[in-house]
Formats: sequence, structure tokens, C-alpha cells
Amino acid sequence: MRYELFYWPGIQGRGEYVRLALEDAGAEYLDVGRGSPDQDQGVPALEMYLSGDATPRPPFAPPFLKAGDRVISHVANILRFLAPRLGLIDEDEDQRDWAHGLQLTLTDFVAEIHDVHHPLSSTLYYEDQRDEAGRRAELFRRHRLPRFLEYFEQVLEQNPRGAEHLVGERHSYVDLSLFQTVTGLRYAFPRAMRQLEPDLPKIDALVARVGERDRIRAYLNSERRQPFNEEGIFRHYPELDGEP
Amino acid sequence: MRYELFYWPGIQGRGEYVRLALEDAGAEYLDVGRGSPDQDQGVPALEMYLSGDATPRPPFAPPFLKAGDRVISHVANILRFLAPRLGLIDEDEDQRDWAHGLQLTLTDFVAEIHDVHHPLSSTLYYEDQRDEAGRRAELFRRHRLPRFLEYFEQVLEQNPRGAEHLVGERHSYVDLSLFQTVTGLRYAFPRAMRQLEPDLPKIDALVARVGERDRIRAYLNSERRQPFNEEGIFRHYPELDGEP
Repeated sequence: MRYELFYWPGIQGRGEYVRLALEDAGAEYLDVGRGSPDQDQGVPALEMYLSGDATPRPPFAPPFLKAGDRVISHVANILRFLAPRLGLIDEDEDQRDWAHGLQLTLTDFVAEIHDVHHPLSSTLYYEDQRDEAGRRAELFRRHRLPRFLEYFEQVLEQNPRGAEHLVGERHSYVDLSLFQTVTGLRYAFPRAMRQLEPDLPKIDALVARVGERDRIRAYLNSERRQPFNEEGIFRHYPELDGEP
Repeated sequence: MRYELFYWPGIQGRGEYVRLALEDAGAEYLDVGRGSPDQDQGVPALEMYLSGDATPRPPFAPPFLKAGDRVISHVANILRFLAPRLGLIDEDEDQRDWAHGLQLTLTDFVAEIHDVHHPLSSTLYYEDQRDEAGRRAELFRRHRLPRFLEYFEQVLEQNPRGAEHLVGERHSYVDLSLFQTVTGLRYAFPRAMRQLEPDLPKIDALVARVGERDRIRAYLNSERRQPFNEEGIFRHYPELDGEP
């Protein structure tokens, strides 16, 4: 099965959570949005689906995944679908529901991280909501950032199968998603993360282990990994990181 | 099976999406947060789970559902679990993934609706972010509110099995969730909704049909249905509805 991932080109964005799972599993996939429009790829191919012209079940927004005839949207839904097929979760239903709940908490976390630089609307530029972003960022760094990170640290600590993984005793797609989120936060909020990370030893160890996985390391060093930038979710604006 | 729903008392909130499914199916359930603390219920019972004292797999936030030994968190995850057990979705996997994707779009919509009155942080009162809320509300009414509603209207229009339901040819939990969202929006933004609804005939018809279902009508007229208020997700602040 060759999967087709549909996501905007030029940013890691939410699509990156799906890419990491596909890459970690060594799955064959086409990154449709980054392809050339003269090959039925690129943004026009995405728009065909979003408009409802290509399917009677249009996704609301990218990312979405095409797997044979099926079109699946939303990161957590895509990962829930892919994980058993890619060997990234156990078959046990209870385990899968727990993993999905954790992934949905990461979804909420990612939305809050995004909204730090866009507190009023995604239809305005950052520059047009900079003051509001400054106020939101301060509250985010003080309350929400530690709250979410301490939660995942606690999940690791309390895992009866050991603190190496979020779900059970083996690597899963949720570990990959936590890796991506922490990596993004280190890029966007280096100062705040330096203050918090000494109290998050289990998260740090997990992130280091994921980064050393063969296929993940190869991917991160490849051209397929787009760099973080100020168009994506994780943006480094020093003023939002509490720089004096 | 008697289900136990854990959610904050005093508001409909996100818990209401789960309540509507349980009520529509006539399922037996305990609304733990609204019970009396001297019966191991109320807020202390919720906090036992949130703290990690009651389970090694603590939820990040309510709502969560206890079904026998299983604890499942996040509205969309809970509904995905409950729906086949309550007869609120077909067994077909493709259908279930499509329904889940729609529910996750509603999750995003609900988060945006909430953030209209809390654009900076849930840790501040509305009164402390009123100016920002005003700016956000205007953009929400102009861009996001129509965007989401038009999407669901299109999904109904394009449903190959007929425009009566969002998923396939029968009533599902996603219809209930759209009902709750539109009902909440009519409470919070009556003026904006009056302008939009003439262009949303299929949504209007769906909402009317859901409201006439026997168990739903009985529930809405019971004391179990808490009224909308200015502590929940859907708040009626006239200044955010574009009142002159």
C-alpha cells in the first residue's frame, strides 16, 4: 500500500505528525502537497479534495490521508488508522483508546501553541495581533506550557510498564508525536524550555531516544524534513519567549 | 452496563456531547460530577482521576467516561467508543472513520467558539480580556462561523445517501453533536445566526429533526438538561454578537 499524504507545502505543520509515523515505519508514501502540479500534485491536488470535487466526503482541512479508496482526516484520526497497520501500536483496544486520548491531548496542546502567535484569528498576520500575542504568550509560558508538559511527564512516571514509553512497554506513534511537539517547543521557546526541562527528565530521555532511532535520524537529516520556520505552528519570535 | 460520565457540574460544556448520545440511546448512566460528594461523587471524584490517584492513566481534563474498568477521555474518543455500543453508528470501519473526522472538526469548531470569549487564556476572566474578545468575535463572525457552518451544510448536500444525515443514511452521534453546536450558537450569537441560517436549510432541518426525537425532547424538558449560561462554552455576550 502506497499512502498519499495531503498537506500544505513549505511547513512541517500538522502534517509532520503523520510524516514521522510513516518515516519511522519505513512506509511508502507520496507527500502530495510537495509534489509538482504538473503531476496532479501540489496545492491544486489538495484543493480538489477540499472543494468536494474529488470526493463526496470533503475534509475540512489538511492534513488528510488517502489509503486506497479511503480518505481520512485529522492527525489523530489518521494516526489511529495508520498505527496498527504500521506496527506503531498494540492490537489491544483499551491500549488504542488510551493512546488516542493522549494524541488528542497533544492535538489540543498543538492548537494552543499555534494560537500563542495567533490569538485573534488565523486570518490576520502575526504583526496585526502582536500585542495580544505578547499577553497570551506570557500566560501560556506561565500556566499552559508547564501544565501540559508536567502531564506527559506524569504519564511516563505512572506508566506501570515503565517510564520509557507513553503507552505500554513499547514504542508507539504517541512517542513520536511527543517528540515532535517537544522539538518544536525547543525551537519556538528555547528560553522557557531551558527553565522547564530540568524538571522533565523522562520526557527528555524519551525525546533523545526517539531522535536516535535509525529511520528517524535518517529522516531528520534528509531533505524530506523541512526546517522549522515562522510560517508553521512552532515559530520562534523571541518576544513571545520572554526575551527581555 | 451502567456508564459513568465525569464532567464538571453547573455547565453543559463538552460533557453535553456525551450526555446527548447517552440520552438519545436511553443508556443507563451516572453523571458523576453532578452527584453528591458524600456518595463518592461530585468534583472530588473527578479530581481523584485527574490527579492520577484513581488510575495510572490519568485523563488530562474532563469529560472522561468510565465503562467497566476502562477510562476513556476526550469527547470524540468517548463518542467513537460509545457509538457502536449505543447503536449510534454503523459497524462499517470506513463510515466510522468518516464520522470520527467530522466529530473532530466539530471539536475544533467548539474550541474556536470557546476561545471567542477567552482569546488570551482560560486562566483569565472574560472581563480581563474583553477588548481582545471583541476583536476576535468580529473575525469569528465574519470568517470562521460561516466557514464551519457552510462546511457542514456542504457535507449534508453532498451525502450520496441523502441530505438528512451527516453520515450515511441514518441518524448518528455526529447528528447529535451538530445539533448541540447549532443550538449553542443560537444561544450565544442569535443575531449572527439569524443572518446565516437562511443559507443553511439542511442544517436547520437536521437540527429540527433531532430536537423532535422522543428521548431528546424528553431530555431537553427534564432537569437533567442544564440551561446554557455564561460559565460554559456557549455564552451570550451581546457585544460579541455584533450588537450595536
